[in-house]
Amino acid sequence: MENSTLQLLLQRRTIRAFKAQTLTAEQVQTLMEVAQHTATSNFWQQSSFIHVTDPQIRAQIREITAQNYVGANGDLFIFVADLYRNQQIRQEKGLDDGVLHNTDLFLQAVEDTVLAIQNVTTAAESMGLGCVFLGSVQNDAQKMIELLKLPQLTFPLLGLQVGIPNQEPQLKPRLPLQFRTFENSYDYHYHLDDLKDYDQVVHTYYDLRDANRRIDTFTHQIATKLSQSTAKRDQIGKVLHQQGLCLK
Amino acid sequence: MENSTLQLLLQRRTIRAFKAQTLTAEQVQTLMEVAQHTATSNFWQQSSFIHVTDPQIRAQIREITAQNYVGANGDLFIFVADLYRNQQIRQEKGLDDGVLHNTDLFLQAVEDTVLAIQNVTTAAESMGLGCVFLGSVQNDAQKMIELLKLPQLTFPLLGLQVGIPNQEPQLKPRLPLQFRTFENSYDYHYHLDDLKDYDQVVHTYYDLRDANRRIDTFTHQIATKLSQSTAKRDQIGKVLHQQGLCLK
Repeated sequence: MENSTLQLLLQRRTIRAFKAQTLTAEQVQTLMEVAQHTATSNFWQQSSFIHVTDPQIRAQIREITAQNYVGANGDLFIFVADLYRNQQIRQEKGLDDGVLHNTDLFLQAVEDTVLAIQNVTTAAESMGLGCVFLGSVQNDAQKMIELLKLPQLTFPLLGLQVGIPNQEPQLKPRLPLQFRTFENSYDYHYHLDDLKDYDQVVHTYYDLRDANRRIDTFTHQIATKLSQSTAKRDQIGKVLHQQGLCLK
Repeated sequence: MENSTLQLLLQRRTIRAFKAQTLTAEQVQTLMEVAQHTATSNFWQQSSFIHVTDPQIRAQIREITAQNYVGANGDLFIFVADLYRNQQIRQEKGLDDGVLHNTDLFLQAVEDTVLAIQNVTTAAESMGLGCVFLGSVQNDAQKMIELLKLPQLTFPLLGLQVGIPNQEPQLKPRLPLQFRTFENSYDYHYHLDDLKDYDQVVHTYYDLRDANRRIDTFTHQIATKLSQSTAKRDQIGKVLHQQGLCLK
């Protein structure tokens, strides 16, 4: 029943160890074409893609993310929500910024950007490459903006490290569908007890990041890890405003 | 060179006309499993998926979106950014909401949600189905929240209408890569003149939504369409706050 694309999507796992090889120019070109052809809200094409090849910038991004595989083996891309381009077009036509500073528009740019990074990941995986999403670039969004010389009305949303896999992680067990899918309306009648079996399953998964121990149960992770901000993540609202985004 | 997944991604087009047939239960199940297995920020799994089968709710969502194909032929899904589930887990464990009300966390939930909708779309297309993303559910986010009985800390981000294609649109021409991809830092030295060729290409594209006329050039669309909010989209920031999201 399953076609090769479905197999990719259903068997997907994050790769965090890559061979000491960069992508070919042709591979990079293909990935960027996939990003380019991704669906875009209202045809406004509000995302941009930065290939980070400079070793110094890569090292600084690695420091921000605090993940040793970032900017190391393989190739690093930063996906940017980008309302600046359309602001420039409007300005050259003598127009004001219209609704570009509204939350609505930022959300659309975020959607464009995330749709693109997922497509690039799927494309890379279909080519035998592995990927890890880097939400960790938001550990210091302001620093990322300075490093990549990002103008007003842009925001460095996610990074992607892509390369030739040098590990084979287990498939990570997900919340059963009953907790994530509903028919017609949201159903919020579940309790901790309902999650016991899943907690047990998660606890038996071995994370390659620390192969010597089992990971915490799902509900224990939710209890312990969402308590306070890591790094400068509580400043993201402020950084967005400084970038001229989500002002209304 | 191209594998079948790359072909799908590079040849992707939005489908807005579907045959009068719903998906099979097995197809729906596969699509929801693909959503479930999508990558998730920090393993927090902060998205939920609502299959809208009730004709009355479908009609009301169609009205919000002002698009006649929404909730008509095929199946309708709403993708929800969902921080509520983890709030409940924390509350049952006697904990406060931690960072769940921060912009940082909302962005992560949005990322989880958009990654999932793109994967579901790719999966559907690999099965011969067609899709249209419905950002238009944000035309009245508050009404969507009421219709789907969404609790605090959730937000109805995007809809997806999926079905058997009943049209074959042209591939829509995208901004050339030179305007969307950069190496190491953002390059903002382009001018309207650089977009002339692309404007011409866009102008020759015939949109099936109005087959009798060519569409406006790209820069003309940017000039005319971003000037003021359509529907209640300028209230999205307020709705997010009412939902307890992006408070900091």
